[in-house]
Amino acid sequence: MKAAVWHGYKDIRIEEVKEPSPKPGQVKIKVDWAGICGTDRHEYEGPNFIPVKKPHRLTGRVAPLTIGHEFSGEIVELGEGVEGWNVGDKVTANGSLTCGVCEACRSGRYNICQKLGFLGVGDDGAFADYVVVEAAKLFAIPEGVSQRHAAVAEPLACGIHATNLLGDIKGKDVVVIGPGIIGLSAFLGAKYAGAGRILVSGIGDYRKELIEKYGGTYVDASKTDLESFVQQWSDGRLADVVYECIGAEQTLDQAIRISKPGAKLMIMGVFGKKPVIDMNTLQEAERVLYTSQAHVNEIATALEYMKEGKINADELITREVTLDTLVDDGFEYLIQHGPENIKVLIRIGEK
Amino acid sequence: MKAAVWHGYKDIRIEEVKEPSPKPGQVKIKVDWAGICGTDRHEYEGPNFIPVKKPHRLTGRVAPLTIGHEFSGEIVELGEGVEGWNVGDKVTANGSLTCGVCEACRSGRYNICQKLGFLGVGDDGAFADYVVVEAAKLFAIPEGVSQRHAAVAEPLACGIHATNLLGDIKGKDVVVIGPGIIGLSAFLGAKYAGAGRILVSGIGDYRKELIEKYGGTYVDASKTDLESFVQQWSDGRLADVVYECIGAEQTLDQAIRISKPGAKLMIMGVFGKKPVIDMNTLQEAERVLYTSQAHVNEIATALEYMKEGKINADELITREVTLDTLVDDGFEYLIQHGPENIKVLIRIGEK
Repeated sequence: MKAAVWHGYKDIRIEEVKEPSPKPGQVKIKVDWAGICGTDRHEYEGPNFIPVKKPHRLTGRVAPLTIGHEFSGEIVELGEGVEGWNVGDKVTANGSLTCGVCEACRSGRYNICQKLGFLGVGDDGAFADYVVVEAAKLFAIPEGVSQRHAAVAEPLACGIHATNLLGDIKGKDVVVIGPGIIGLSAFLGAKYAGAGRILVSGIGDYRKELIEKYGGTYVDASKTDLESFVQQWSDGRLADVVYECIGAEQTLDQAIRISKPGAKLMIMGVFGKKPVIDMNTLQEAERVLYTSQAHVNEIATALEYMKEGKINADELITREVTLDTLVDDGFEYLIQHGPENIKVLIRIGEK
Repeated sequence: MKAAVWHGYKDIRIEEVKEPSPKPGQVKIKVDWAGICGTDRHEYEGPNFIPVKKPHRLTGRVAPLTIGHEFSGEIVELGEGVEGWNVGDKVTANGSLTCGVCEACRSGRYNICQKLGFLGVGDDGAFADYVVVEAAKLFAIPEGVSQRHAAVAEPLACGIHATNLLGDIKGKDVVVIGPGIIGLSAFLGAKYAGAGRILVSGIGDYRKELIEKYGGTYVDASKTDLESFVQQWSDGRLADVVYECIGAEQTLDQAIRISKPGAKLMIMGVFGKKPVIDMNTLQEAERVLYTSQAHVNEIATALEYMKEGKINADELITREVTLDTLVDDGFEYLIQHGPENIKVLIRIGEK
């Protein structure tokens, strides 16, 4: 079969590899669509999480391996002991690889398993004709949701999960810094959790229309000072909840300064460099800094939102490539045109 | 009356000043005992919070002013409109100065008032023969608790408050880094909130006996690697809750690394310098970073613990001075002998 195999930085090769076979408890899936995640782009450009020398703590794998973890597809084979699923079922999955026995796994928080891995990072992933996945991590794609749309459920689950971690945010004033797909997932997660007003801050006007369509307020932080804007927007009260979805020291600092006493900050951005944090300002008003790691079962909620028409995934899919054009039209394109892009999908099995 | 007046770094003068008069809603208190807080020491050595040029945001005051906010005393005069208190009542107080009208104040979290000040920082404090305090922030000293002991209730309230912010910690494995009075307040706060095992990390053996007497485990981090010790102590599971009570980058880093997936970190240390934070490690396991600012009504709980014999304040009072000896025997002594000291009390009105 055809697969996108990671050999090193800027060295993803489209190769013929052996089809995977499902082990007990796993299913084999024919991949219809896959999505390029920010972490895939990190693998491409660095820094990488794919183990090169030291074997992965859970799977023992090292590069080369097939990347990708966002996908939709159809079950083509059941591994031994799999119940509740049938060949032909349309599915997507949580791509986490987990030990199943640590305290986090046993308490249902398998996304923070002590040995956590991910498809496409710790084992062969979904940028391929076929992928094998644990049956326990599958989600049925409901009728009325296309395979193409379903491939976007995984990133949307991130914002829904982060929002669930924050507890009740009904009626709260929320600011989202950084409207990439993760920031948008936070925006939509907060919206459908009943947040009050939501302000989204970005650079440029790429997301203005989309945010406003979903009832949010958009501010172009390259033209307007975010802190002054939030002061005015909140009548001096500042924000109850701030999602930081960039992963930079400057936006972390902004997040602290635009949040009111007792506010909750949610860190979703991935920091390429350890930031300096203004701990005194955080502390003087008992702000709480939450962090979020992927998701647990929130893909089901994302699919439900699509089915109910609450989210139109078409608005999030800004480009389509194939495995053959993945590197030049996908990764290289993203490096050149990151900000205006939301989600690049790879059309694989669906013709 | 006699008062310890702050004029600048290393310039606290014992002076004759005018006795304060209670405004409406305030009471005048004859101070019996006062305690030197870490923030008083900061005022002495720098960096200071006492306004020098720019008037205080709530009170409009600038230096010189009388320092101190931990104290016990007796009411000698009631301001207009004060009800529920009588001349002769033995009291201590929450020394916060608050606006009373912001969202935090109205929700009962006056410790994070948007204009928060503190006695001895934003207005004349308690290192004096008399102090005036809002009646709404008084706590009656119960029978059986001495005035000397009651002066220690304020710092103990800090750890009780921080623990309350964490929610239910019953049965949890807790680590406290830094056994100064704030770390000890966290230790005792966690203990009486029902924490499971508590490990306290310090430098040297000054607190070993005290921690063990109260059922904790003490580790001298100058001789034993804390991370390895926690690994062993927790059988590889790491800590559920970590209180950072130092305010340093290194101990913040330790706090993150010794905490398990999903753990709660409580930052109580005051950072002299903004720290670099290992955000990825915090995030990869959804650790939550809480911060705590003084306390609200937890002085009542601290006094109750003393009354019930759960805390013997004698064990926390390591030195006594007077106003006349405050600078040389108090502040200068602390600079030389910080680590072995817990709480220095100033004997003022009680002979």
